[in-house]
Amino acid sequence: MAYEKDREDLIEGRNAVIEALRSGRGIDKIYLARGEAEAADKTLGHIASRARDAGVVVVRTDRRKLDAMSATHAHQGVIAVAAVKEYCTLDTLFDLAEGKGEAPFLILCDEISDPRNFGAILRTAECVGAHGVIIPKRRSAGITGVVEKTSAGAAEHVAVARVANLSAAIRELKERGVWIYGTAASGAHSLWQTDLSGPLCLVIGSEGEGMGRLVRENCDFLVSIPMRGRLDSLNAATAAGVLMYEVLRQRMASGGGAEKISAEGR
Amino acid sequence: MAYEKDREDLIEGRNAVIEALRSGRGIDKIYLARGEAEAADKTLGHIASRARDAGVVVVRTDRRKLDAMSATHAHQGVIAVAAVKEYCTLDTLFDLAEGKGEAPFLILCDEISDPRNFGAILRTAECVGAHGVIIPKRRSAGITGVVEKTSAGAAEHVAVARVANLSAAIRELKERGVWIYGTAASGAHSLWQTDLSGPLCLVIGSEGEGMGRLVRENCDFLVSIPMRGRLDSLNAATAAGVLMYEVLRQRMASGGGAEKISAEGR
Repeated sequence: MAYEKDREDLIEGRNAVIEALRSGRGIDKIYLARGEAEAADKTLGHIASRARDAGVVVVRTDRRKLDAMSATHAHQGVIAVAAVKEYCTLDTLFDLAEGKGEAPFLILCDEISDPRNFGAILRTAECVGAHGVIIPKRRSAGITGVVEKTSAGAAEHVAVARVANLSAAIRELKERGVWIYGTAASGAHSLWQTDLSGPLCLVIGSEGEGMGRLVRENCDFLVSIPMRGRLDSLNAATAAGVLMYEVLRQRMASGGGAEKISAEGR
Repeated sequence: MAYEKDREDLIEGRNAVIEALRSGRGIDKIYLARGEAEAADKTLGHIASRARDAGVVVVRTDRRKLDAMSATHAHQGVIAVAAVKEYCTLDTLFDLAEGKGEAPFLILCDEISDPRNFGAILRTAECVGAHGVIIPKRRSAGITGVVEKTSAGAAEHVAVARVANLSAAIRELKERGVWIYGTAASGAHSLWQTDLSGPLCLVIGSEGEGMGRLVRENCDFLVSIPMRGRLDSLNAATAAGVLMYEVLRQRMASGGGAEKISAEGR
């Protein structure tokens, strides 16, 4: 599959590179397209100037060279060579929740293999203010160039814990007071009938098979997303988005974990 | 862009082909991978048998030939050659709503150019029981192989109206009693504070630019999706999914348009 060939250290596209610069993540070098159109391009100029401020080497190069480097084929004239994102531990995710004074809100991706889905899930996780995403070391998309790009820069911000054993990770979450919510086509209750305002981890199943058997058996609750048409499932990233926003809706309605929103008027 | 090269008449992948057979859509021919692994493969056998029942020609061929035909590079051993999906008119969408005894629930895609986003939006539209999707003739992904595949077969079921002029289409919708809801990063009210239970059309803006100016000015309401992180927008298909499921949640809560669900216990 294409993403396995992606270099892990390329960040492509304007928004992704700007977010990488903003996050203070170590960038070795930035390649910018060279040409008349580019010279007049304000966003590329902005990137060059931020890069210089951050002490990052900027290399002007032919668009053809960028095309050849690109894994996404949508580099928009800029590619950054960066350190591979550092994965964190479960402890870090709990620290992040505690630091915000919020009940843990975590996402566990059970073998999401499509890097575009994974990128979109990271983007939504960042947008709802989740404290982190958990992925297995095996059989999962890692943080590649395609993921960075699809996440629109969220991969820079969201804490991602990569664990050797999903079942052990779920056990640890439970011991630390987190409820595990899986999805099922025929869960007893819909997401709207389920209390999602407490400390929780949403499990997002893989694109083809859904959740693995062991992971499913370890869930405290199975919730369903109502289906009114002739299909029986959503795209994995869309399902994740619908679930995450239902968590945020309930938390804002109950006041739990929603202090930040009212304080900042967002 | 890659999808412009896609042949409009190929349906790739197991779910997409099964849905195409199920929908009764005209299929000229089905190419199936030939080989030992394929002979033992129950899903491919199932497709072959359904195709024969439907009077569709089945051609066994080398996997390499399928690879060469494939636009998605994920054909899973099966490609159907089908009639291009027929677009319908706005009248048809209203007829579908009336036939179900439901208030119109429509999606308007304002220049969604990424075929994967468009496919995911079609899939969600089918899953929430929307009555149809409206796209402009220009600057929008059409129903291509990638869209079919990403939609997991929904492109077969969802009515899609392709209109020459979005503003004129919006005017017609308004004249027929449909409220137009656009999204904005800073809409006055969040989707949860907005009544979405009446006859409505959700406008989904393009990936890069959001809604066009004219379309935005024609919206009756602008709603926002709350953002609690450092980004200011979701992936277009995720945003569409969150909005569509909020419509369904409100309709089910108010009983409006929800008869079918309780009747069938879904």
